Amino acid sequence: MTVSHYVASDFEGFEKQFRTNFINSLSGFKSVNLVGTVSKEGITNVAIFSQVFHIGANPALMGVLVRPDTVRRHSLENIETTGYFTLNHIRPSFYKQAHQTSARYQISEFEACGLTPEFGSLHPAPYVAEAHIKIGLALAETHHLAINGTILVIGKVIETFVPMDYIMPDGYIDIEKAESITCSSLDSYHTTQRLSRLSYAKPDKALEEIK
Amino acid sequence: MTVSHYVASDFEGFEKQFRTNFINSLSGFKSVNLVGTVSKEGITNVAIFSQVFHIGANPALMGVLVRPDTVRRHSLENIETTGYFTLNHIRPSFYKQAHQTSARYQISEFEACGLTPEFGSLHPAPYVAEAHIKIGLALAETHHLAINGTILVIGKVIETFVPMDYIMPDGYIDIEKAESITCSSLDSYHTTQRLSRLSYAKPDKALEEIK
Repeated sequence: MTVSHYVASDFEGFEKQFRTNFINSLSGFKSVNLVGTVSKEGITNVAIFSQVFHIGANPALMGVLVRPDTVRRHSLENIETTGYFTLNHIRPSFYKQAHQTSARYQISEFEACGLTPEFGSLHPAPYVAEAHIKIGLALAETHHLAINGTILVIGKVIETFVPMDYIMPDGYIDIEKAESITCSSLDSYHTTQRLSRLSYAKPDKALEEIK
Repeated sequence: MTVSHYVASDFEGFEKQFRTNFINSLSGFKSVNLVGTVSKEGITNVAIFSQVFHIGANPALMGVLVRPDTVRRHSLENIETTGYFTLNHIRPSFYKQAHQTSARYQISEFEACGLTPEFGSLHPAPYVAEAHIKIGLALAETHHLAINGTILVIGKVIETFVPMDYIMPDGYIDIEKAESITCSSLDSYHTTQRLSRLSYAKPDKALEEIK
């Protein structure tokens, strides 16, 4: 099989859309989520983000990367104004609506894309009712990444909604059984098939599959 | 289906391993990669990281989150000392070796775990020969996340190795065809099955599946 070898100066010569697709593919499968926010005027917003990641378990922290020059800046403005946002796992039954939230709407994406806002009692940000796994977060810290103007938003998890059936006795949430999907590059969505869970790795000890 | 509702004070009461598994499950499927580095003495190191993400396409930037209090600090030390690291997608044929790199070894994880180091001409960090998709990066910026002491390492992509068969005419890399896997929480590995690629979203325009 012929293997391509590109260097940084090649990327600059790529046609813009080719480069965007190619570079966005490199990180691997992504933690795609719907981010729910509300403006100070009470207008709900929901937008798809694929740069979401675990930061720490105690305290429970998660990060979202935001490009200020995209439609997703509304999410950032709302997070900074209200101090809260939600993360909602995407299922196959509504992944097209989730993708559609990236269009530039003048009205709430919930209404425009056929998703249902749902509210808890701890904060004003909307959840996506169609999601099985929902996380409420309070803004904890933001970092400006000088190198390209991206904003890293760090949230502290203040509540979670997870169906009991998906929580294993050791705390692992079976997000595959919960139908959470993943994405690659900018526009490709994928379900998953477990290979296995593996035991904690130690030198000179064979790994076991966790049943 | 009964839905659990936990709040932040509940997390503190969780048994430690339960909390670690639960909170690590929340972000969704992760961009799991092997990070290859070398020490200034020339000892190669390879370690599995699941907090890897796209930061920008032009310039091409990727981020890796590192907990300084884990075995993975050797990777961080090597990146800071040499200025370079590699990212290597994991395939089902070596996911157990990849997981095993998280054990605390006194020798190179390549040797200990049965992986093969491979070198390019642009920098000293080792690639994983078994990987189909390999990315070489130069350290560009680090951020200390004060909230929990995590380090965000940002690298500029300086070269890529991708088999031509997996690069689509529009630049999208079919990482599913390339056998790249994803992971969830700390120890679960998954292959994927594409739902579809979707066209660029615009208001009042129906999405199309990209063939």
